[in-house]
Amino acid sequence: MSKILRINTKEKSYDIQDAQGDLASLGGRALTSRIVLNEVPATCHPLSKHNKLIVAPGLLSGTAAANSGRLSVGAKSPLTGGIKESNAGGLVSQKLGRLGIKAIVLEDKPENNAFSLVVIKKDSVEILPADEYVGLGNAETMKRLWEVYGKRVGVMSIGPAGEQRLTAACINLADTNGRPGRAAGRGGLGAVMGSKRIKAIVVDDGGTDKVPLADPEAFKAANRRWVEILNSHPVTGQALPTYGTAVLINIINEAGALPTKNFRFGRFEHAQDISGEHVTELIEKRGGKTKEGCHPGCVINCSNVYHDKDGKYLTSGFEYETIWALGADTTIKEIDDVAMLDRLCDDIGLDTIETGVTLGVAMEGGLIPWGDGKAAIDLVKKVATGEPIGKIIGNGAVFTGQALGVDRIPIVKRQALPAYDPRSVKGVGVTYSTSPMGADHTSGYAVAPNILKVGGDVDPLKKEGNVELSKNLQIATAAIDSAGLCLFVAFAVLDTEDGVQTIVDMLNAQYGLSLTPDDVIKLGISILKDEHEFNSRAGFTKVHDRLPDFFKEPLPPHNTTWDFTEEELQPAKHFD
Amino acid sequence: MSKILRINTKEKSYDIQDAQGDLASLGGRALTSRIVLNEVPATCHPLSKHNKLIVAPGLLSGTAAANSGRLSVGAKSPLTGGIKESNAGGLVSQKLGRLGIKAIVLEDKPENNAFSLVVIKKDSVEILPADEYVGLGNAETMKRLWEVYGKRVGVMSIGPAGEQRLTAACINLADTNGRPGRAAGRGGLGAVMGSKRIKAIVVDDGGTDKVPLADPEAFKAANRRWVEILNSHPVTGQALPTYGTAVLINIINEAGALPTKNFRFGRFEHAQDISGEHVTELIEKRGGKTKEGCHPGCVINCSNVYHDKDGKYLTSGFEYETIWALGADTTIKEIDDVAMLDRLCDDIGLDTIETGVTLGVAMEGGLIPWGDGKAAIDLVKKVATGEPIGKIIGNGAVFTGQALGVDRIPIVKRQALPAYDPRSVKGVGVTYSTSPMGADHTSGYAVAPNILKVGGDVDPLKKEGNVELSKNLQIATAAIDSAGLCLFVAFAVLDTEDGVQTIVDMLNAQYGLSLTPDDVIKLGISILKDEHEFNSRAGFTKVHDRLPDFFKEPLPPHNTTWDFTEEELQPAKHFD
Repeated sequence: MSKILRINTKEKSYDIQDAQGDLASLGGRALTSRIVLNEVPATCHPLSKHNKLIVAPGLLSGTAAANSGRLSVGAKSPLTGGIKESNAGGLVSQKLGRLGIKAIVLEDKPENNAFSLVVIKKDSVEILPADEYVGLGNAETMKRLWEVYGKRVGVMSIGPAGEQRLTAACINLADTNGRPGRAAGRGGLGAVMGSKRIKAIVVDDGGTDKVPLADPEAFKAANRRWVEILNSHPVTGQALPTYGTAVLINIINEAGALPTKNFRFGRFEHAQDISGEHVTELIEKRGGKTKEGCHPGCVINCSNVYHDKDGKYLTSGFEYETIWALGADTTIKEIDDVAMLDRLCDDIGLDTIETGVTLGVAMEGGLIPWGDGKAAIDLVKKVATGEPIGKIIGNGAVFTGQALGVDRIPIVKRQALPAYDPRSVKGVGVTYSTSPMGADHTSGYAVAPNILKVGGDVDPLKKEGNVELSKNLQIATAAIDSAGLCLFVAFAVLDTEDGVQTIVDMLNAQYGLSLTPDDVIKLGISILKDEHEFNSRAGFTKVHDRLPDFFKEPLPPHNTTWDFTEEELQPAKHFD
Repeated sequence: MSKILRINTKEKSYDIQDAQGDLASLGGRALTSRIVLNEVPATCHPLSKHNKLIVAPGLLSGTAAANSGRLSVGAKSPLTGGIKESNAGGLVSQKLGRLGIKAIVLEDKPENNAFSLVVIKKDSVEILPADEYVGLGNAETMKRLWEVYGKRVGVMSIGPAGEQRLTAACINLADTNGRPGRAAGRGGLGAVMGSKRIKAIVVDDGGTDKVPLADPEAFKAANRRWVEILNSHPVTGQALPTYGTAVLINIINEAGALPTKNFRFGRFEHAQDISGEHVTELIEKRGGKTKEGCHPGCVINCSNVYHDKDGKYLTSGFEYETIWALGADTTIKEIDDVAMLDRLCDDIGLDTIETGVTLGVAMEGGLIPWGDGKAAIDLVKKVATGEPIGKIIGNGAVFTGQALGVDRIPIVKRQALPAYDPRSVKGVGVTYSTSPMGADHTSGYAVAPNILKVGGDVDPLKKEGNVELSKNLQIATAAIDSAGLCLFVAFAVLDTEDGVQTIVDMLNAQYGLSLTPDDVIKLGISILKDEHEFNSRAGFTKVHDRLPDFFKEPLPPHNTTWDFTEEELQPAKHFD
């Protein structure tokens, strides 16, 4: 896997070359962030021709390594103004891996508004007019592309939100059923793809050989151990496969950390109605699937397919963060309304976290009533039609707050906070504050040691130990995101002595290297350094490493406050 | 003049105390910026209870000193996120001076949405329900307040834009005819007043004595010389009184610096249609007034009253920046449409510069056609009704650009550029870039030496000398803004040997001081230091001292580009 495919979206031309220099050894997030740092002027407008959208499979993607099919997408974020890597499942990552493509780089931008479709095959790259797909939701787009290109292809596309270049727009990836249940959700990367006027990218690995392995036997052995590690851990082997990620609703609610009514409370009185247990029960009753991988080769299978009360498909990839954002944060307790909102977000191409928090802000501003699922559904539908109110909602929480004159907006670096209140999960609060990505749980999931007591035990309600914890998790996560591994492997890796070594063994066997676990740490650090450097050039300072003032209010039930100073947080960003 | 009136907008209570410590000697912008620096947390949300709105007359305001009736309004800006001082004429400044009130400070914010009216008299301060005025435009609000409180009172109020807390909202001041022709326009201060739920402030100086003077004879002599200086300069004595500020349309167009069609060209083919000469001709034909002061005691009288083709009042304070923004930048050439847009902005309470540039961005995004005055009028009217598209437009250029996915947005620190293209008036480009206020011509009007050859002669098309020029002008301006003097006095002061000394003579005679011109420079520097310090605490770095990338495109007719690096600009902000 050694080639970089650069597509000039203005000229509709492309160039494919072996990766050179420092890019040759990088994959996934390490590669997207390095290219953004090296090639995108940090001060450019994110929707201008100067920005680039980079799509990169992880280093292990395309091999048989379990859970290695995550795709990294990077750019300067139109939402945060900083660097962004957002990753997702789907089929694209492994197919790019098998095609030997390390990265697709979308460059420049067209002078008119016509959209194109990129089709990548073993021996061809085509940039075709996409007029027939313009205005379609992701579901119909993906359906038609599978009809035209066959059900083996990977598809990533944008919906009406991305077409309109709205900053809550994500890039959706077709799941194994060809539905838009997967998303490179955060940071408005769909708007960048929209600014390049690329409606969809189709990746067909037909005719390719297996990914070459330097030592196939060693790789096989390491992967066997890898699967064993994942299957034997209670979180990755049992909890997630059984109830999906929404198993966390009851757990986080119990911990008093489920942000409710725009981060006013840590518990939601209707948590049971939107819990993973309830979702699983409904799926079992109505049909659908309780277990599904977000990409082929996944052994955790934490995803799902959710049907409505008539037993018809309603949505898929109905995850914890989504259910929280569209449910507890808005106080919408009808799970079918929450599922419909998820379906709409996937189809229109909106980040569910940003959208849920935005709906909370809209309720705060009196635009629709608290907890009114039907009103929320009507509002989100207006994003697709391009009405002004839809453009407001589709630009996220800060934007909607500004439109409505609301000053209670839970964001860091203009990105909405995810599903853990930082006052009662302080480790993840440190991640929100200091991650180069803005408020993002995935970039240093301190919830594990804080609440789940996986990979350590650090008190979630106190400051002690949480800065160091978040820092170490941010480093490990950056490395995992570069391998193309699903973040959830960390639960098992953190609790297993040879966890990191097993990942290293797979990398060494694939590439003929002799890396050590220390090298993995070094890789993680170098990625974060790249990302902080970009943000610094873009004008970010420690002042931006902060939660809004209202997090100084005590959060029931623990009545803890966010009490870190900016200075106390800085060590999480210093690596020397 | 020694008292500070603090109003708690939550409790509807007030407190009036002698100014203490460093505040005692300050006035106008020096005072608003010092209070903002000392009392407003730089990282707070500008619409939160932590922000304060400070209203301060200048040091000379209330005396007979010519042109000393400008009012400073300060806060953390909801538009830029940095410190803001915006100043305006009207009647309030001199009346506060005569009441001995150095500053009104609006603090905290109400828990409900009910608006109040503040009425300040010689012996009373009342905070009254304002329900009957809510939703009214500034024109009707001011008319009713004059009916209730008499035609002698000063009024400052917000329109529907400020009520909605939109970030292009200004605070309007009733002019000598009781109309909303004056405005503390820039930086969205109307939204801060709206967040405090104060619809209007009425200032009645009935029963007050004259402002005490330490040496009345010396003051009289200095003021006599002061009037002489203003009357004898060709700009303040002839050009401005004859044609108003719009005399600049032809001059700046001729200089190739009149930003046209969202800053694409330096000349507007229909400049003549919107020129000061044409406006004057129409006023003379239709009735109205070609000469009018923005406050009593003005001897320049650059303002006007503009009638429609039927001879009925249409607008007033129909100034160069307004005509450019709503005219050339949008390519609207019908002057009566431009006048109607000005009237609407004044009534709704929108900054005309921000709104004109926003309309240009809306045209860039295809929302309405270029040059379509009627469509622009319909759009601006929607700000008053609170429709979503109105909320978009009323939040300014960056916001509208984000809503529409436009990346050509002429701003610095999120504030729209005024009426001089920085590529062909490089001195003012330095001011736009480095002023703590964001893009603002008034904070260092290098147009004077660059184009008008007043107060020096620095080539507008080259870099040489323009950083130093802008820096010196920014220092002088800060001091002028503290005295309560109109900025236009600078034309005469810069060209007159005893200009600064005469201002110092008035201050010394009023306060019994022995200041020197050097002290004025020191004051200007200390103000800028306060402001840069606040912005630094708010997270601004040199990265924010830059013009958008598209200013690297050559600007016809001179085909010059913006070619300063951030490093080259920094000396304009360093004072030691």
